[in-house]
Amino acid sequence: MDYTLDKIIKYRREFHKYPETGWKEIRTSARIAEILSQLGYENIKVGTEAVDINTIVEPVRLSEDERKKEIKRAISQGGNKDWIRKANGYPGVVAEIDTGNIGPTVAFRFDIDALVDTEPYESGHKPFDEEYISINPNSVHACGHDGHIAIGLGLAKEILKHKKSLRGKIKLLFQPAEETFSGAESMVTKGHLDDVDYFFSMHIGLSYENKPLPSKSIACGCCDFLSDRQLDVYFQGKAAHPCGASQEGKNTLLAACTAALNIHSIAPHEEGLFRVNVGEIHAGVCANTIPANALIRVEYRGENSNITNYGKNRVLTIIEAAAKMYELTYKIVDYGEVPTAKSDKEMIDIVKKSAKKVSWFENIYDYGNVGGTDDATVMMKKVQDHGGKAVYIGLGADVTEPLHNPKFDFDENVLIAATNLFVNILKDISSCKNL
Amino acid sequence: MDYTLDKIIKYRREFHKYPETGWKEIRTSARIAEILSQLGYENIKVGTEAVDINTIVEPVRLSEDERKKEIKRAISQGGNKDWIRKANGYPGVVAEIDTGNIGPTVAFRFDIDALVDTEPYESGHKPFDEEYISINPNSVHACGHDGHIAIGLGLAKEILKHKKSLRGKIKLLFQPAEETFSGAESMVTKGHLDDVDYFFSMHIGLSYENKPLPSKSIACGCCDFLSDRQLDVYFQGKAAHPCGASQEGKNTLLAACTAALNIHSIAPHEEGLFRVNVGEIHAGVCANTIPANALIRVEYRGENSNITNYGKNRVLTIIEAAAKMYELTYKIVDYGEVPTAKSDKEMIDIVKKSAKKVSWFENIYDYGNVGGTDDATVMMKKVQDHGGKAVYIGLGADVTEPLHNPKFDFDENVLIAATNLFVNILKDISSCKNL
Amino acid sequence: MDYTLDKIIKYRREFHKYPETGWKEIRTSARIAEILSQLGYENIKVGTEAVDINTIVEPVRLSEDERKKEIKRAISQGGNKDWIRKANGYPGVVAEIDTGNIGPTVAFRFDIDALVDTEPYESGHKPFDEEYISINPNSVHACGHDGHIAIGLGLAKEILKHKKSLRGKIKLLFQPAEETFSGAESMVTKGHLDDVDYFFSMHIGLSYENKPLPSKSIACGCCDFLSDRQLDVYFQGKAAHPCGASQEGKNTLLAACTAALNIHSIAPHEEGLFRVNVGEIHAGVCANTIPANALIRVEYRGENSNITNYGKNRVLTIIEAAAKMYELTYKIVDYGEVPTAKSDKEMIDIVKKSAKKVSWFENIYDYGNVGGTDDATVMMKKVQDHGGKAVYIGLGADVTEPLHNPKFDFDENVLIAATNLFVNILKDISSCKNL
Amino acid sequence: MDYTLDKIIKYRREFHKYPETGWKEIRTSARIAEILSQLGYENIKVGTEAVDINTIVEPVRLSEDERKKEIKRAISQGGNKDWIRKANGYPGVVAEIDTGNIGPTVAFRFDIDALVDTEPYESGHKPFDEEYISINPNSVHACGHDGHIAIGLGLAKEILKHKKSLRGKIKLLFQPAEETFSGAESMVTKGHLDDVDYFFSMHIGLSYENKPLPSKSIACGCCDFLSDRQLDVYFQGKAAHPCGASQEGKNTLLAACTAALNIHSIAPHEEGLFRVNVGEIHAGVCANTIPANALIRVEYRGENSNITNYGKNRVLTIIEAAAKMYELTYKIVDYGEVPTAKSDKEMIDIVKKSAKKVSWFENIYDYGNVGGTDDATVMMKKVQDHGGKAVYIGLGADVTEPLHNPKFDFDENVLIAATNLFVNILKDISSCKNL
Repeated sequence: MDYTLDKIIKYRREFHKYPETGWKEIRTSARIAEILSQLGYENIKVGTEAVDINTIVEPVRLSEDERKKEIKRAISQGGNKDWIRKANGYPGVVAEIDTGNIGPTVAFRFDIDALVDTEPYESGHKPFDEEYISINPNSVHACGHDGHIAIGLGLAKEILKHKKSLRGKIKLLFQPAEETFSGAESMVTKGHLDDVDYFFSMHIGLSYENKPLPSKSIACGCCDFLSDRQLDVYFQGKAAHPCGASQEGKNTLLAACTAALNIHSIAPHEEGLFRVNVGEIHAGVCANTIPANALIRVEYRGENSNITNYGKNRVLTIIEAAAKMYELTYKIVDYGEVPTAKSDKEMIDIVKKSAKKVSWFENIYDYGNVGGTDDATVMMKKVQDHGGKAVYIGLGADVTEPLHNPKFDFDENVLIAATNLFVNILKDISSCKNL
Repeated sequence: MDYTLDKIIKYRREFHKYPETGWKEIRTSARIAEILSQLGYENIKVGTEAVDINTIVEPVRLSEDERKKEIKRAISQGGNKDWIRKANGYPGVVAEIDTGNIGPTVAFRFDIDALVDTEPYESGHKPFDEEYISINPNSVHACGHDGHIAIGLGLAKEILKHKKSLRGKIKLLFQPAEETFSGAESMVTKGHLDDVDYFFSMHIGLSYENKPLPSKSIACGCCDFLSDRQLDVYFQGKAAHPCGASQEGKNTLLAACTAALNIHSIAPHEEGLFRVNVGEIHAGVCANTIPANALIRVEYRGENSNITNYGKNRVLTIIEAAAKMYELTYKIVDYGEVPTAKSDKEMIDIVKKSAKKVSWFENIYDYGNVGGTDDATVMMKKVQDHGGKAVYIGLGADVTEPLHNPKFDFDENVLIAATNLFVNILKDISSCKNL
Repeated sequence: MDYTLDKIIKYRREFHKYPETGWKEIRTSARIAEILSQLGYENIKVGTEAVDINTIVEPVRLSEDERKKEIKRAISQGGNKDWIRKANGYPGVVAEIDTGNIGPTVAFRFDIDALVDTEPYESGHKPFDEEYISINPNSVHACGHDGHIAIGLGLAKEILKHKKSLRGKIKLLFQPAEETFSGAESMVTKGHLDDVDYFFSMHIGLSYENKPLPSKSIACGCCDFLSDRQLDVYFQGKAAHPCGASQEGKNTLLAACTAALNIHSIAPHEEGLFRVNVGEIHAGVCANTIPANALIRVEYRGENSNITNYGKNRVLTIIEAAAKMYELTYKIVDYGEVPTAKSDKEMIDIVKKSAKKVSWFENIYDYGNVGGTDDATVMMKKVQDHGGKAVYIGLGADVTEPLHNPKFDFDENVLIAATNLFVNILKDISSCKNL
Repeated sequence: MDYTLDKIIKYRREFHKYPETGWKEIRTSARIAEILSQLGYENIKVGTEAVDINTIVEPVRLSEDERKKEIKRAISQGGNKDWIRKANGYPGVVAEIDTGNIGPTVAFRFDIDALVDTEPYESGHKPFDEEYISINPNSVHACGHDGHIAIGLGLAKEILKHKKSLRGKIKLLFQPAEETFSGAESMVTKGHLDDVDYFFSMHIGLSYENKPLPSKSIACGCCDFLSDRQLDVYFQGKAAHPCGASQEGKNTLLAACTAALNIHSIAPHEEGLFRVNVGEIHAGVCANTIPANALIRVEYRGENSNITNYGKNRVLTIIEAAAKMYELTYKIVDYGEVPTAKSDKEMIDIVKKSAKKVSWFENIYDYGNVGGTDDATVMMKKVQDHGGKAVYIGLGADVTEPLHNPKFDFDENVLIAATNLFVNILKDISSCKNL
């Protein structure tokens, strides 16, 4: 490989330092485009060429003012002005290369957004000690997407190097807003998956037999995706003085707390995994008034549609009853549903064959566990629907904390191994006689 | 009276339009000082001459940046630049006049701050229909302090007019941060109450025999103040992915909800009124992470110290247990306690005598109900401690909604009646032979 | 007095040893009748002559089998067989005496039932140490009714002694089922209060200015009764295996718990005291099944009808919503409402005058606090409705624990003092010229 | 087969009519022994020869009085007096037969106890319509053990018929108290499993790929047992009058409700299934007292020891915190843990081979889902620990309601099919050359 581990790690740490949450990945996207361009990529799509902005659901859509503010910030953090201008402040990058040789269209998807949380400035936390800790408030790469980007850039370099020996077309999809909503959908709707024959997506971390995958291990495919749906629930009650006419108050805070406790008490489902979380609650404006407004953010996931429907029914019933209990009105903002999907066995075999050629991978498993959600499934289903094949790979890596914990960090050796893996996959596909 | 009802109402509506919450009453204070100065008052104290800023508790203290921002806003909203500069962005106004005739020192206290809430832009709500609705976000005069200021300014005008026939010294205390914390204390510590013989404070609204006091009624004194203490409780847990290693999460949201429900379930106390409220809850940063941080704002009130201690013990026990239940750490920010107090019978008689001369007051009661808290008690106690007399008057007024509801509005006729009442009181005191 | 303190205390302890809860006071009633008969009373009404059994609400009505079992028990505990047979196993005793002298009809009411609870067999608890502790399971005189009976019997003796000097008719009403429901109503419906001019009722313990009344003090009348209403709520859901098809369960236990927490969180009412209690909860039949049935027993009390209606609306709304939250059906058994009432000033003066003649009473107050409920109010209202006068007296007594605690015990000196008080009252009434 | 379907169904319905819960299976055991004896079995062990009564945990141990009462009931319901006397009122039956031919020891386990619940007397429920509904209060065969007994008796008959062609020893274990606690342990401790080479246990119902197994299907082995632990938690607080000195109460009801809601909110574990249930709650003795006592019955289950320990820690932490929240003391009665276990692949193959010979079984699966607990695992582990092989079979059957629902009923055709299956298994084992 041309890229040393150092170079890929350097990229990863740079993206780690400037984390941007869903639909704000402006600096990130501009930097990706800039690097790809420097490498020699020509057909680089950004902004509304990369994503369909009509798919952005209202609650996460930035206002014009907000986008302008974010653009300003992105530039101040070293985002390439030309690319930002070209993207008009929208995130997402698609790089395409045609090898010139007849062959299939292969796509790799790398998600690029960060999580809303605060990275701890604590000694002992490597990003702090080695000075690549997040400088953006309420933004942290606690889900490994900084690593995914670095792998994508490493792969981009290698593709150019091996271009002649490869066949077909290759697409690199740098996708925004995986954690938020509709990032994958925005690229699917734009048509980028329409002609894809082989679709590869991956995640650092994950599990095998429900135990974390350590460094030097790989799960060649995952099938246990949960669907995911997020609801924002706004309760509207009536304010009152807590020691005046308190009897006239309609207390949204107590309703929201009651809803939260009972939503977390929803019984499991015998057909498979069901997960539910009230991730946010906000009520009231001061200590001495009965709160007239509350918001809870709920998400639920299920392994199949029976479970999802069960979860939906229970969640909605509890919310309605909690509102009724305090004589409130309420409205629900629904972010839509991320579906389940399954990796194709054929693809798992391809991954396994190539993984065996990467010496770092000592333990190679067929099936891994996501046990959660990734909107890569939207792309997988799109590809599978027109007869293509798709896979979602678990890249084992020792981690310091579980995913989504703001102190999450991982063994960066996985970055080189993964880059090598994908190069091998491309070579294998290209040398396959029956393509 | 020189001031017509129109003029006082005009003042009240102006202050209503520019509500400023605790320690941000910069425009309000500058405008009060400006008007007093135009009336002819000379010895006007503002800023650190009016309040002791060391008493401001940390959670409500503005940073330098915040104060600068508020100063800028206040000026943009017509706040007099000279007075704002003189006050250095601190609120509070004290006007003093010496009649030149031997006599007692009489003080009147008017609280000037607004509440944190959003006034509804709805037709049918008079401030909206008649265009004096709040233009400041999260700020609303829902507790009648805009009216209190107007009464104070009306009284200021009348005092000058009757100056010759009055005796002793008169102080007008325009106090910030009644709703927040330590507004009254900041003026007491500054020494403004040290020499006061007669102290008058009042509130629009209130009750008699636990029924709202309508227009044309007055309760000449209140004795049933509750003490009040506010705590901010910060829970610290551990974030985790709700469908990954969720078992490693320490869920602050559920702890906060459990605390809130159980705090509201605290049993009453046989010795008198006990009130408790969780007025705010905030936890989490997104839907798909177990929340590592939560805040609840609690306040409790009691009619005597047994009750207050009982409440404190129960609240702290519940918080500690809720933290323990989810293996959290927590810290509590304590805003200190506003005490109880009682109006002096002698003062109630003075008020009653004067109220009979104001024809608007058709129903004159000795004792009214606060059934809540006002930090006027801090001033009352100070005055009573050195042998002075104090009273807290309930000014009956028809209202549209209970106090603290953002749609609260009141019969503005009370403003003239109250101004007349206080002029009469001053006259009566001045004509009293045994002063 | 003929009865020594010893004798009255002996009676009190005997009744303490054989406590009987509402509508089971068979031994108690038979023993009262037996003693009254031995004293010389002739016109003793028991069973359906004392109470109207149609008033017994269904949930507390004994079945024939249960009554037979209770009769058997009562006899085995020394209950006089003849009186039990005459009463046919129904409780309640009315003794009437006509002095032969023209005068008013005066009634005294003594409630005779015990509470459902377990008296602790602990050294240091006097009834245990001195061997008059309850021998009936789930039954304990923790509300002083054992003392009330002893006072009634002491008074009965004294009345005979002073018969010649007294005027009018005197009724002694030994009332069952005060703690349960409809005991007072059962005697009112039977007509015993129809001709009463002066009605006296009392309770050991109670408070003055919300502090417990100690020994040697008396509150001559109470006015702050709360209404009381009890509801039994039966939730019906669906059982399921908690780790099989748990998603099919309809969990009544969680609904009942949610209802209980939220009912206890009902906001206070500004017009006066509101009290609510979930006193019982029962759900489930074993650890490993989702419970299909639950029961909660709720009672709420209010100082006026606005408050009562508010409480009713909140309680019913919460119950309905809790059921909805878990997709349950439910039914409510309503025990009816015990009303509020006020003591007549005229009666308070009579009590005060007589109390001054009893040297034990060192502190004599006009108004005491019930701060709760006693169905004596049903009798008070009946008497007042036809122009009679009524009073409810608080008999101060040092206590070991608050009322309704199964370790409640009191200073028995109050028994003699109360007996003397009532004799004095009768004498005073009889000597009053304008009767 | 000699037994017709009718006969086996007749047995099943007889046991269904007389359900007996854990350690009360006196009539059931006597009837089993009586039938086995009539069939010709000689070496029938009952009572303390069948079970080690020292293993019975205290909370489910009957007092002498209770056992006598149950014996009386069992006799009145047609229980054979001689066998009951011989068993001294203890349940459990072990029948052993030596074929006389050299061979392995094979054991079959049939659990015989019923659940605590009330079978509904409703038209449409077959046991009601066809008059074999439970006549014992709070007892119902809602878990199919009535069918298990019938299969065992069918098998017993067939064994005698085929005795000559069979080899080795055969044990039929009719085990009490599967639903309660320590039934399996009581037989293991007694030594009945010490020499067993092949152990077979089964359950009607169960699932395949988390969908209920319908009639004509069979899962030849299960491996996904959850461990199970039950705790009874007794909270001790302090009673008080809810509108007297309510501040002195220590409310166990609210603590128990808070514990229940939070226990049901325990987060899942990424390593596998975790289940928790609060199956019972009881607090209080009447509506108008703050409850001083409460009990909750909790059980939790986990797929491995990490999960179990996690569950234990969370449950105990929540209980301790709930007690602390209301300043209560508490004690926990621990019933011990039922372990996990896995069926041996070798045994699954044996079952599969034999199942193919039973025409009723149209769908034959290797692995089924228990997704729960059965203390057959105690026996499985015992057998496996000394080198024997064990299996737990899922017998598909259409059901009317999920297991543990009191309206549970099943397709009785499974009884004949299962009996045939086990006869085939015995024949196969006996004909196997390498035994």
